[in-house]
Amino acid sequence: MVHAEASTFAAGLSKADAYAQVLEQAEALFEGQRNWVCNLANTASLLWHSYRALPAPSAAVNWAGFYVRDRSPAAFTSPQLILGPFQGQVACQTIALGKGVCGTAAAMATTQLVPDVEKFPGHIACDGASRSEIVVPVMKNEEVVAIIDVDCAELNGFDEVDRTELEKLAALLARSCDFP
Amino acid sequence: MVHAEASTFAAGLSKADAYAQVLEQAEALFEGQRNWVCNLANTASLLWHSYRALPAPSAAVNWAGFYVRDRSPAAFTSPQLILGPFQGQVACQTIALGKGVCGTAAAMATTQLVPDVEKFPGHIACDGASRSEIVVPVMKNEEVVAIIDVDCAELNGFDEVDRTELEKLAALLARSCDFP
Repeated sequence: MVHAEASTFAAGLSKADAYAQVLEQAEALFEGQRNWVCNLANTASLLWHSYRALPAPSAAVNWAGFYVRDRSPAAFTSPQLILGPFQGQVACQTIALGKGVCGTAAAMATTQLVPDVEKFPGHIACDGASRSEIVVPVMKNEEVVAIIDVDCAELNGFDEVDRTELEKLAALLARSCDFP
Repeated sequence: MVHAEASTFAAGLSKADAYAQVLEQAEALFEGQRNWVCNLANTASLLWHSYRALPAPSAAVNWAGFYVRDRSPAAFTSPQLILGPFQGQVACQTIALGKGVCGTAAAMATTQLVPDVEKFPGHIACDGASRSEIVVPVMKNEEVVAIIDVDCAELNGFDEVDRTELEKLAALLARSCDFP
């Protein structure tokens, strides 16, 4: 049975170790369950609590969650992302493909590691407290089906460890979940 | 544009005032957006941050979120709820209709206000830290389509104010979102 302690992270873990725990717990949670809402909701919780257990700047993460491809009729002519499960404060419901950090990652199908969001052209300031951001696309059959989005209230909140590990998580999500 | 501050609650609010802000913000967020995942994700954030701004026992809320009717083939013969958006620690993915506080609320289509979860027959201990719980069904066309679930790490975490206000929220969700 799933237990809340899966999202308890020991103090003093390195960032790589914390991500290893996220990946291990996520893989265990996805066994026998491919529902994307359920799996992304638990993954957002794992990510959120892992950052909380790490030293700065990771501890200053103020949003961790997902957007997915909007498959509604409205999105047919204007492709957009729609908000999925997350932990943190209220967030923008939809993001047009190509707009802001999330929309750019989705349009270009590449990770965006942004040390200072105010220097990113067309940055969407859902939360004025966010200073840096990383967005990693989740690819299925060469299409972006979702993005992982993590915001930090400090500049330079993310580095190559975050990129490598979140790209592993994106690959795990792509093969473990049925996306809309 | 949606802003994170929608989930900022002033210190010193009464519980009724905090719920009034949740309802007002939720209604504004749902305007022009009926996607249930997007809307429940933002609602879980509103609820979570409202409890955090209140005195004990509300401040001890340790999980706030949703389960929805599982419409997958597996759930056809054994009806069950499946995890939706939430804030808090990792949670059980599925709950059989009639099992535990959530499954009972869904099976009976009535709010379950449980002052001490250990005294509830068949309680499912996803998180051993949870001591009390309230579960409110979201009804559409006389069918339970989802439940609001809030757990508290203190006994007697919820009262008639929570029941009344969460039932208002359930009615708002029922008329504002297209559920699976």
